[in-house]
Amino acid sequence: MASLLAVGSVAYDSVQTPFGRVEEALGGSGTFFSVAASFFTQVYLVACVGRDFRREDLEFLESREIDLEGLEYMEGETFRWKGEYGYDLNEAHTLETRLNVFAHFEPKIPERYRKSDYIFLGNIDPSLQRRVLGQVADPQLVVCDTMNYWIEGHFESLLETLKGVDILMVNDAEARQLAQESNLVKAARKIHAWGPRILVIKQGEYGVLMFHSKQGQPFSDDGLSVFGAPAYPLEDVFDPTGAGDTFAGGFLGYLAGVNRSDLQTVRQAIVFGSVMASFNVEEFSLDRLRKLTYTEIKLRYSEFREMTHFEDLEGALGSELDRLAGRNP
Amino acid sequence: MASLLAVGSVAYDSVQTPFGRVEEALGGSGTFFSVAASFFTQVYLVACVGRDFRREDLEFLESREIDLEGLEYMEGETFRWKGEYGYDLNEAHTLETRLNVFAHFEPKIPERYRKSDYIFLGNIDPSLQRRVLGQVADPQLVVCDTMNYWIEGHFESLLETLKGVDILMVNDAEARQLAQESNLVKAARKIHAWGPRILVIKQGEYGVLMFHSKQGQPFSDDGLSVFGAPAYPLEDVFDPTGAGDTFAGGFLGYLAGVNRSDLQTVRQAIVFGSVMASFNVEEFSLDRLRKLTYTEIKLRYSEFREMTHFEDLEGALGSELDRLAGRNP
Repeated sequence: MASLLAVGSVAYDSVQTPFGRVEEALGGSGTFFSVAASFFTQVYLVACVGRDFRREDLEFLESREIDLEGLEYMEGETFRWKGEYGYDLNEAHTLETRLNVFAHFEPKIPERYRKSDYIFLGNIDPSLQRRVLGQVADPQLVVCDTMNYWIEGHFESLLETLKGVDILMVNDAEARQLAQESNLVKAARKIHAWGPRILVIKQGEYGVLMFHSKQGQPFSDDGLSVFGAPAYPLEDVFDPTGAGDTFAGGFLGYLAGVNRSDLQTVRQAIVFGSVMASFNVEEFSLDRLRKLTYTEIKLRYSEFREMTHFEDLEGALGSELDRLAGRNP
Repeated sequence: MASLLAVGSVAYDSVQTPFGRVEEALGGSGTFFSVAASFFTQVYLVACVGRDFRREDLEFLESREIDLEGLEYMEGETFRWKGEYGYDLNEAHTLETRLNVFAHFEPKIPERYRKSDYIFLGNIDPSLQRRVLGQVADPQLVVCDTMNYWIEGHFESLLETLKGVDILMVNDAEARQLAQESNLVKAARKIHAWGPRILVIKQGEYGVLMFHSKQGQPFSDDGLSVFGAPAYPLEDVFDPTGAGDTFAGGFLGYLAGVNRSDLQTVRQAIVFGSVMASFNVEEFSLDRLRKLTYTEIKLRYSEFREMTHFEDLEGALGSELDRLAGRNP
């Protein structure tokens, strides 16, 4: 088990969906990420909160054994986000963002954290992401999130950051926007050339695509290969907030937990990420993760496998297929 | 190998995409379906054309060994469709539809065809679909396509047809519209209760979901289970026309070809459908299928498997995972 350093936001979210609402619930990308990852490994969280940060929320993070030496208390209020979702639940409509203390956040990495092998650079200014990287020794795997705001306004800085990134994790619109290319395979090639050896594309209710370099696989013309996993279809989705962050937390938490990052393990990690996201959206805020058990996680992983697997042609139908071949050139 | 009866349209398509255009190219749902299915089994095509139907197109269908006794020549012109696609390639914009002889189409099933075990009811008036079913003896598997036009204007008639259908094949918008339910799991339950034991939901560039009844699987509360397959990510998509029909043709052609419809085989059939659709969109009209080989089909099937598979937890990481369990309740 290796330790995992995460930098991101801790916030209070007010969210309305067609199924209910919460006010001032614990949220933020760093929170969702850390809690999801904490099921698999030791998490070091680097973030900031205001003096109004609630004792019960601190205790909850501690109960998940998340290391909080890197959680900085600053003068002012904690980051606030207010948003709502319509019936399709695919897109958040932001009603209000108050950065508060997060506007002045300058990540400082405690000495103990600097030898972390696994690094998650949450969705913050690319120059801050680089400053985090500058403070860690020699990480084994660096995963980076970003968004349209940084792609549009800080493109060159983001490219500079990507040089030090192993895995870029974005949604499909962001991948297309970053590469200025509507075809995802071509976009993946372009992003690949900028540094990240793996591109993970989150597609919400449609699942996840991963492009990576590997010889002798699909797209092997120049060694670009692909893995695809559907999302777990849920009968009840109450609150999509944090789905992307819990995906990232399950993904990187698992890799750090087993301390491997070969491609087969990365595929499993994508499924663990999908598992954690699928649980998280079942209730508001972090409510589902608060009571989630490791047994439930393993069971849903097995359900994912059952949901996606199909027999190889070497199996029972091989001879029948060979007969069919007689019909064709 | 069992024979496959398909009813659908034969048309001349004029299509413009960002990558080029074709005028009066052979198309129509019955054509795309039959040509794709012909790689796997004997197809009986029931459709109609006008006196202007070109000899070369007839010869092409014959070269695929498609049985054309059910292809009726009628007075008038062949069905014409004109459409265009933008850069996202997800949605066709219809510029012109001239039904011509298809407006008076009344499917008549030749005697030889009536004992077919596998039936494909293409996207036509639900009452015509029932009339086709009324003319066949005792089919093993009935697959039905439909669209928003019939869901909106002929809902009761469509429900009547669904009673005799084993597999309904629609896209996600159509599934939601049909069930009047935005959540796909709930929509699947509702449609399931109307007759079809399997619901195949085509999601275009995002792949395919299948809901089916099975005990002891995900959603096992009431025996509804699911299979998900991503689409094959292509670097060059030139013309999406016929993607849904070639998917259906590969799907049902394979089932008829191996003459099985157990759930494992149906999963493989979904992958063969995805394979055929992925080839079809690589060139305009039927151009890619005209030169496709059986070896290419088998190779891409294997690539699909490589693209979607990941290790079970019983594998190498089992013991590491058990160590992680110590962190959790």
